[in-house]
Order: sequence, then structure tokens, then C-alpha cells
Amino acid sequence: MTATEVQKARAASVFNRESLESILRGRFFYAPAFDIYGGVSGLYDYGPPGCAFQANVVDTWRKHFILEEDMLEVDCTMLTPYEVLKTSGHVDKFSDWMCRDLKTGEIFRADHLVEEVLEARLKGDKEARGIAADPEEEESADKKKRKKKVKQIKAIKLEDDVVKEYEMCLAKIDGYSGEELGELMVKYSINNPATDGPLEPPMAFNLMFETAIGPSGQLRGFLRPETAQGQFLNFNKLLEFNNSKTPFASASIGKSFRNEISPRAGLLRVREFLMAEIEHFVDPLDKSHPKFADVKDITLSFLPRGVQEAGSTEPITETIGKAVASKMIDNETLGYFIGRIYQFLVKIGVDKTKLRFRQHMGNEMAHYATDCWDGELLTSYGWIECVGCADRSAFDLTVHSNKTKEKMVVREKLETPIEVTKYEIDLTKKLFGPKFRKDAPLVEKFLVELSQTELEAKASELKSNGKVTFQINGIEGDVELDDKFINIEKRTKVEHVREYVPNVIEPSFGIGRIIYAVFEHSFWNRPEDTARGVLSFPPLVAPSKVLLVPLSNNKELQPITKKVSDILRKAQIPFKVDDSGVSIGKRYSRNDELGTPFGVTIDFDSVKDGSVTLRERDSTQQVRGSVEDIIKAIKDITYFGVSWEEGTKNLEVFTSSQ
Amino acid sequence: MTATEVQKARAASVFNRESLESILRGRFFYAPAFDIYGGVSGLYDYGPPGCAFQANVVDTWRKHFILEEDMLEVDCTMLTPYEVLKTSGHVDKFSDWMCRDLKTGEIFRADHLVEEVLEARLKGDKEARGIAADPEEEESADKKKRKKKVKQIKAIKLEDDVVKEYEMCLAKIDGYSGEELGELMVKYSINNPATDGPLEPPMAFNLMFETAIGPSGQLRGFLRPETAQGQFLNFNKLLEFNNSKTPFASASIGKSFRNEISPRAGLLRVREFLMAEIEHFVDPLDKSHPKFADVKDITLSFLPRGVQEAGSTEPITETIGKAVASKMIDNETLGYFIGRIYQFLVKIGVDKTKLRFRQHMGNEMAHYATDCWDGELLTSYGWIECVGCADRSAFDLTVHSNKTKEKMVVREKLETPIEVTKYEIDLTKKLFGPKFRKDAPLVEKFLVELSQTELEAKASELKSNGKVTFQINGIEGDVELDDKFINIEKRTKVEHVREYVPNVIEPSFGIGRIIYAVFEHSFWNRPEDTARGVLSFPPLVAPSKVLLVPLSNNKELQPITKKVSDILRKAQIPFKVDDSGVSIGKRYSRNDELGTPFGVTIDFDSVKDGSVTLRERDSTQQVRGSVEDIIKAIKDITYFGVSWEEGTKNLEVFTSSQ
Repeated sequence: MTATEVQKARAASVFNRESLESILRGRFFYAPAFDIYGGVSGLYDYGPPGCAFQANVVDTWRKHFILEEDMLEVDCTMLTPYEVLKTSGHVDKFSDWMCRDLKTGEIFRADHLVEEVLEARLKGDKEARGIAADPEEEESADKKKRKKKVKQIKAIKLEDDVVKEYEMCLAKIDGYSGEELGELMVKYSINNPATDGPLEPPMAFNLMFETAIGPSGQLRGFLRPETAQGQFLNFNKLLEFNNSKTPFASASIGKSFRNEISPRAGLLRVREFLMAEIEHFVDPLDKSHPKFADVKDITLSFLPRGVQEAGSTEPITETIGKAVASKMIDNETLGYFIGRIYQFLVKIGVDKTKLRFRQHMGNEMAHYATDCWDGELLTSYGWIECVGCADRSAFDLTVHSNKTKEKMVVREKLETPIEVTKYEIDLTKKLFGPKFRKDAPLVEKFLVELSQTELEAKASELKSNGKVTFQINGIEGDVELDDKFINIEKRTKVEHVREYVPNVIEPSFGIGRIIYAVFEHSFWNRPEDTARGVLSFPPLVAPSKVLLVPLSNNKELQPITKKVSDILRKAQIPFKVDDSGVSIGKRYSRNDELGTPFGVTIDFDSVKDGSVTLRERDSTQQVRGSVEDIIKAIKDITYFGVSWEEGTKNLEVFTSSQ
Repeated sequence: MTATEVQKARAASVFNRESLESILRGRFFYAPAFDIYGGVSGLYDYGPPGCAFQANVVDTWRKHFILEEDMLEVDCTMLTPYEVLKTSGHVDKFSDWMCRDLKTGEIFRADHLVEEVLEARLKGDKEARGIAADPEEEESADKKKRKKKVKQIKAIKLEDDVVKEYEMCLAKIDGYSGEELGELMVKYSINNPATDGPLEPPMAFNLMFETAIGPSGQLRGFLRPETAQGQFLNFNKLLEFNNSKTPFASASIGKSFRNEISPRAGLLRVREFLMAEIEHFVDPLDKSHPKFADVKDITLSFLPRGVQEAGSTEPITETIGKAVASKMIDNETLGYFIGRIYQFLVKIGVDKTKLRFRQHMGNEMAHYATDCWDGELLTSYGWIECVGCADRSAFDLTVHSNKTKEKMVVREKLETPIEVTKYEIDLTKKLFGPKFRKDAPLVEKFLVELSQTELEAKASELKSNGKVTFQINGIEGDVELDDKFINIEKRTKVEHVREYVPNVIEPSFGIGRIIYAVFEHSFWNRPEDTARGVLSFPPLVAPSKVLLVPLSNNKELQPITKKVSDILRKAQIPFKVDDSGVSIGKRYSRNDELGTPFGVTIDFDSVKDGSVTLRERDSTQQVRGSVEDIIKAIKDITYFGVSWEEGTKNLEVFTSSQ
């Protein structure tokens, strides 16, 4: 097959999730964790091919982002004390809405329940109207089957305006608050789908796993829900490491944890997951990006906030350059990262036609974000958020700085000094001790923290009355101060340094979700053998690169097999030998399931002249050459982005007699 | 300097922990986590150079073990349900001994306290006797200073036999039980060193962090204390993945957690740490290793159990081959891994003169181990366990299999079938229901689980009396059965398959401890500049490989600097550019602290002929050549183990005019 024929065959192949999953589990890409103990929902283990695939994706990520963009990688602890996550807002706000059925003890995630019930009713309506379900709805049905909440679809016709209401509601489903979800449940009579029993109104359930640190059990802690906080807390050290220059980015790859209410959907919703996060620190007044030109001509599918709020899911196709120019994307830095995310995803095997960037709606955004675009990948479970690209503004640095009194700012030397006029307060400190005794520090702190507006008001009061009064928290009665104690004045000063808290643009990758989407996007069946699957991973991320196949298990072939093995090992190319007795064809097709891109066949000619055959997985094309030339071709194609045609152009085309 | 001169200078350099730590923290190799919140003891973050170093160590480990030995890597969850760790014995036995001071609320780790108090008394004795402390004792003093438990040494002379007792006790300190530690504390009057107040007797404190999984809070779980359990639970899947062939090894790299009682000593005792663990599954009757010959001639320092139990710490120097032949090391597989551990440690920069293998004493071993050798590295904190190499026998597979009823065995087809004679019991099942009703399954289960010895006894009883009686747990009174119900017979059968539970040899690496030891082993001061430190990391693991230095910030040098940068990036060699205005010498010496092995200097000749200078960090030798040739030399030396002399032999020696 030619490359074009392969593309056609892949496009024509009908996706079947069961056969993909049977391969993924059968070949131990992954398995439910604690399987022999009955498993724990939301926890999965990666077996050898899954683990190698993950390691290669992480390695590619590190090179694509950290090395290529000179980011500062850090590795911070997962155990995090209460105080930090209280300050970051996670203790109060990092929760999902859950509904209990008091009778059965079942617990549902409110937004998922509403979504599934309404989808089921719409489907029932279509059946009642005699309309065939379209393919996308088939997927939803499949989803329900897995989730097993809405057990059967009843063919009941709905009023036309109810259908519209439901559809509108589903388009906005990610944007509802707990209260709104509760109202929807009452309005649409949504109960426990299994028993039709009533449910309690949605309650917030915090998604963090809690634990106690130290032997006394007194230090409360959590497992981090994101890797970001460690990066923020180290901001000053990172800035210093970067010679105080901005913009710069830190990055972190590691596990995070979310105690999902009722995790299903396999690798897509798990309680422990690998994340890769970038925190790009940038001047709030200048979010341009020096390398924006590199990505501006990339055309992508966008689903901005306005489109969704109007109840539509129709994307806008646009270049990144135009999207930024029209302010659909807020700024160049956000646009630049959206482009880089796209490049990364395509490099590791995402089908670019199954990728869109969706902007969060107001209610949907995390408590720390002011804007967010999700990189969503289309899978048999629907569109799945796999990468978030949020503008966290100065939120995190500000709250941690306020809490700890540790200044976290960038100091920029101004080329032209600027004049700044503001009110200032001077305290005659020696008088405060005698007058206020132990309260003196409290009074002083209160005064120096007065805002410009308060100072302006008090300045005029002081001028006209010669004294001012304050109510200070923690001190009974009014506090009166005359102009011997304080002086408030408007002053103009020349400043040579501008101080600012940087804003943060955060591209955040859910590695497990991306990996699962790549599994789906890579999976197809050859037209001539629909019973067996092929995983067409890009060579760069394939778990193993080469299957080494001696034509038979004749002893004569053993020395050269050993020699080629040694050369591959020395060249650090991951490979496996299959010297089982079965036919070459069978060995290759067994290996298609592991996504190994190359086969190297050793035959009796190899013994004579040292030449071997190289086979490409997707096209099954074969070429022949010396071991050294074949290895060079494998390396160039795998690690240096060279195409099969280019990489093998000096090798002889080989037509198998098999 | 020549390589030999470098070696001499490094050996002559006096180690100073404060200056190493000031570099490690100052250049952000690592820092206390949550620093701005006051920190949490036992938790550390890695900054950019520490993180890159760690990633390189892990990558080397993966290549050295997983790729080179065809191991099956898995990535299992850290969250682990109670049931699994109850079965593995960790809920009951994974604890340290702690003593509380009820008055002050302080908590001490009992073994550390006894050790420190006795060491302090011995030191006081030497002072009283006017004996100068030897260097190793200086280290201990230093240790105490950090730990701040024993605040001052009192010069009090001890009786000679007390000194001997204390020394004997310290040699065996890792082997005492909680009860024994309590007895020692009473016998030697060991109290709270700060207040001399009494302490409670040692109590077991479980070191696992606990949490609750799921919204109901009913599923108890822990953070894993080791990565091993996930590998055991997946044994059947791994065996199948390996086409049912043994021996084979699985491996895992990931974080584990231990809630240390009172962690100090920096990176050496932490609550969250990166581990790399191998579980090598082997036939209990054949622990030979096919590649043993590769390591048998390696000479190492061994401290076997017997030597320690005799109160000595004098190691035995021996080849691995002889150590296995003399049964000091139990078997070839254990010996093979000890050799491979040695090779790995040396590859990443461990000083081979500061490495010994110490065998665990009886009491010291983890509950699952039958034998264990620790790879210990000498640091300024003393000898530190960095790698454990344990024989876990069939412990883990057996307990999990018993608990879950999931058979975990290897089935070996016997070349010559064997005759097996054993007692068998036959039940006339149809009679059991009518007689025992609901108890019938209990009785049947009891009978089929009888051991060979019990069967033998009952067989003769049945033969002589025509009936037998049993006491069965859960059934009141005796259970009497006659020969209509059961038949017990000795039978001889031919078996074609041998079934066995494999034994496990487990090399287990504490990556953080190893990294810290390499930091100490790599650190020295140049004789001509003792104020500045050098970290002589092997190029393979150095955080960055090249510092690119334009001679000045003259604009003329910018295009070629950019060009060389692009070539380095394309070659995937991690590098940094330092185009600050300061002198070349200063830039290099600043970079010595980061352990960057190569400097590439761009000067005005580079603009003319494209040549650049390559400088080696330790010797400061320089050579000159084309960018391509220099990059080839860097790659060969860094990634393919070529020496500087060999790698640069075709390049022109360059004598700097600096």
C-alpha cells in the first residue's frame, strides 16, 4: 500500500471500541488496578506497552516544551499542607456537585446525571417520532451502556419546545452551578434512574484526598489536585534562577489526584493521573509572544464562549493569527500556546480532524481562571477535555503572597523613569508606644495598610479638624489621632523601577486522557483482515520500535540474530525479538496490535551478505539493505521526523515471496 | 591538568558540607517544599538543575536495567486499598518505634535516640580520657548538631566495660526490636536529652499515610510505601505478557510515601520519595543467572551478617564470584544484581571507594524478606542505605494468592515426567448435603484443605475404625464421618507439569538518596580557587551538557552563536547560553557549580572559519575544531561512554590566551 492508500483504508475502517479495548487489555497496555482484589474504580495500572508509550509521550513533551522553549522544570511534592490549598481556594472551591439517594445510599454526580437523563429522553423522543439515531447519538447510547445509570431508553414523544429546552440545556451543561443543577432536577423531575426514587439536592463534595502528616496527626494535608501550586510557591527562586528576567515558564510533570464522585469511562476519568503543566509568567501589560509568528498560520477549530452560550456547538475554523487579531483569543501568548499544544498533539498521534479548542463559559471556569480554552479530542465517549490552557491572571501569586507576606513580584528597571503621585502616611512612632501600649503594633499596621481612597478622605479630615478617628478591628471604641501622631500628604516621586505581579498562562495536559485518545485515533483494521487490529502509532512514541524476526528458528540464523540484536541495543533502539515458530505474517500481525512501526527480517541471505529486510507497519512496504543502513533509516524516521519515503530512498525495494 | 592530576586534586580537597549545601540551595538544585509557608519537614522540591539531574539518573536507570535486561516496566497507582496492604503485612508490621515525652509532647524515634545518646556518651568519654576524636567521630558530632537532639557532649569518663557494651550495642543498633529498645532505654537511663524528662516505652507507629477513597469515605486506603505491591498483583498478566516464560523481571519507577516520625538529614530521610524497583521472578530451586559471568570478577566491600553480629564493622573485600561460591551471598541471581547495582552506581557518579554492601541482621529485615543486602554509600552523615537487594522468597505472591484465591504460579512443562506419591481424599458429595445441610460447604472445604500429615494420620484411623472424627471451626461438637462419606488413599501419579510459586529477588533504589550521595561524591574545590566549588558529574547525568559562551557580547558574534545553538538543539543536546558581559573565567566557574561538563567558546575566529573551542570542566583542557566535530565529540563522550582523550584525539589542542 502507498501512504495515501493507508490513509484511505484508515478513514474507511469502522471504529469499534470493544475490539480496541480487548487489545488494550489483552496486550496489557493497561488494566484495572487491584484487579485480583476486585478493583477500585478510577484506578488503573499501565502494563509494559502502556508504560513505554507513556514514557515516550512524556519524553516528547519534555523535548517539545521544556528543552525547545528553555523552560525551568521543577519536581514538587504531592503531599501538600492544608494551609497552602486553603489559600489557593481549593479547600473551599475545588468540588463537584453530588446528589445522594438516601434510600439506596447511591451517590450521583449531579451534572452527569442531568446530562444523561436528558440525552436519554431526547433519544426516546426520536424513537417515538420514528427518526433514526445519527452516529453521534449512537455514541451517546454506547456511553450510557457503559455508565449504566440510565438503563433503558423509553420511546416517549416530547413537546417540541421541551426538545428545544433540553438541547439548549445540554449545550450549556458544563456551565451550571450546583443550585442551578438542583433547579433543573426539580423542573425536569430527575430522580434516581434505576428506582425513580427522590434525590437530595446537589451538595458540594471536595475532590481532594486528605491525609495527616507526621506522627502527632495534627498537620492536615492533601494530595495535590494539580502540579501548579508547587510552581507558584517557588516563584521567587525560579525568577532568581532565570536571572530575574521575564517572561519565563516553569514546568512540571507528575501525578495529581482527584477523588472523583463516581468515576467511569476507563482511562478518561481517573482518581490518580499524570499531568504535565506549564506556568508561563508574563507581564500583564504585555502578553505578546516573540515566537507568535511561528504559529499564526495554523488553522484550527474553535468553539468560543459566545457560540456555546447561544446553544450551538458549531465550531469556527480560523487561523490562530486571525483569532488573536479579532480578540476571539485574548492575546498572543495564549494563542502561541494553543498552537504549540496543537503541534505536540499531532506529533504524538492525535488525528487533527478530531481536535477542537473550546472556550470555557463563565460558570464553568475554575475559581482561579479568568479565561480558559480546552484542547478537546473527539473519542467514542464524545469530545473530551485533554489539555486546558487557562489564564490564571495574578490570582495565585497574589493570594500566596498576601497569606505569607512574601513579596512575589517582578522588578523591571524603567528605561524612562516615571513620576508617580500618591498619598503617603507618616507615623511619629515614638508616640504610639506610650499611648497604645500592647495595641501599638496593631494600630500602626492598620494605618500603613490604608488604601489610597481612605488616605485621601482622611487627609482632608485631618486638614480641617486637626485630628481623625478610626475603627480598628480588635480595639474597643474609636481610635483618635491628631496631627502630632500622623501626617498624610500627597507626594510626587520619580520611580526607576516598575514592580508587578506577573500573570500566568497555564497549558495543562492530562497525559492519560491524551494517551487514550491517541489509542482511539490510531486504531484501525486492514481491509483484508478486519478481525485483527492495527495501532498506527507514530514511531516516535511507539512502545517498541522494531520487531526482529528470524525467518525460521533454524540454528543457522541465530548468530546473525544475536549480532543484529547487539547493534540495535548499542544504538539504543527499543526492540523485541520474536523467534517463535509461527509464520512471519502471523508474527507481524500480532505485533501490529502493539503498534511496533518496523519489522526487521533475517533470512538465509542475511547469513551470506549481512543484508536484512525492513518492513513498514502501515503500508507493509519492504526495503532491503545492510544492517547499518537499515538502522540509520530507523533512527532518522523515528527520532528525526524523516518520512519513510525519504528515509529509505537509497534502499532497495524488496518484494516478499511470502 | 591531566586526568590523573584531577583525581589527585579531588582526593586532596577537604569536603565541607556547608559549602555544598549553599551551592545546592543557592543554585536551586533543591529547596524545602512550602518554604514560604515555613516548610514541612521531610518534604523537598527539586529545582531546574536537580530536576534535570534526576531525570537523567532515571533515564540511565531505565536503559541500564529495563532496556538492557528486557524487563517489563509497569506503572501502578500510589493509592492502594487497605485490603491489599493488610494482606501484604504492611498494616500490621510497617512501623518504626516511637517514644513520647508526655510532658513536652515531643516524639522521638526510639532507635535514633538510643544511637545518638550512646554516641554522645562515648564521645564525652573520649574527651574525658583526652583522646582526640577521629574524623569519623567528627562526622557523628556533625550529625548530632544537625539533629539537635543531643545538644552538648559532656566530658564524662565511662567504665571500660560500659564503653565496650555501648560499642557493641551501636554495631547492632539496626537489629533491635521495640521491646529491646525499651529495655536498653531503661538499662542506660535514656531520657529526653533536652529536659532529661522520662519517656514512654517505645510504641509502634505505622509509617503509611492513610486516606479515604470515594465520596462515601468508606473505602480506606493508603499511599503506597513501596512500588512492589502493584507488580506482585499484576504477576499473572506479566507472566502471560512474557509468554509464560521465567525467569523474568518487572520494574517500576515512581513515588512512594513514608510518614517518618521525625525526618531530618535533608534529602536522605524524606516522606515522599522516588523509587525504582525491580522484581525478578525466579525458580526457587534454580537461582542461577545466565549472565553471572559478566559480574563475577567485580571486587566489592561486603559486610556480612556474621561480622556485624560479632560487633565489628570491618568489611570483607572479595569478588562477587567468590562471595557466591562461599555462600556469603546466597545465590547467583542475588550476586548478579549486586554487580549490576554497582555498575549502575559508578556510571552515574558514585565514588566506588565509598560503596559497600551490608547484609541485614535477622531482626532488621523487613517482614517480607528472608535475606537482604543493602548498597550503602558513605556520606558526611555516615553510611547510608541507598539500594536494597532483598530476597522476598514467595512471601508476597503467596499471601495475595491465599487472600484472593487467585492462583499465582509458574507452570513448567517437565522434560521427564515425574512420579508423585501422595494421600488423596475423595468425598461422596451427595451424602454431605442431607447430613450437614447449611454446614456442608464448610465441612467439604475443611476436608479438601487437610495437609498430607493430617491425611496420613486420618487414613490409618479410618482404616482401623471405619470412621474418623474432626473438630471443625464454626461447627459445634465433633464431626464424625464414616467410610461411606470419605475415602483416603495413598496414590502414585505421573505429573507432566511442575507448578511453583516463584521467588522474588528485589533490587530497590532510593533515587533521592543516591542523588544526594552523588552530589557529595562529585563535590570538590580546585586547589587554585578553594572558595568556589565544582560538581564533577559524569556528562551522562549532568543537568546540562554544554555552556555556550560567546567571548564577548559584541554583535558580530550573535549570528554564529544562534547558529551553534540551533545545531545543538537539533542534536538534542541540553545546553545553556551565557552571553552575560562577565569574564569567560567567571562564567565557567559559575557553571562549575552546576556541574556542566563542557564549555563551547565562540570567538572572532569562529566568525571567520566556523571553528569553536571545547573545554572540559575538570581538567580545563581545551581543544578546537569545526562545530560538527566538536558536537560529535560531545555526543560520543556524553552518551556513548567514550573518554575525553579518545573523543577529542582528532581535535587540535587549544591553549587559551585568557
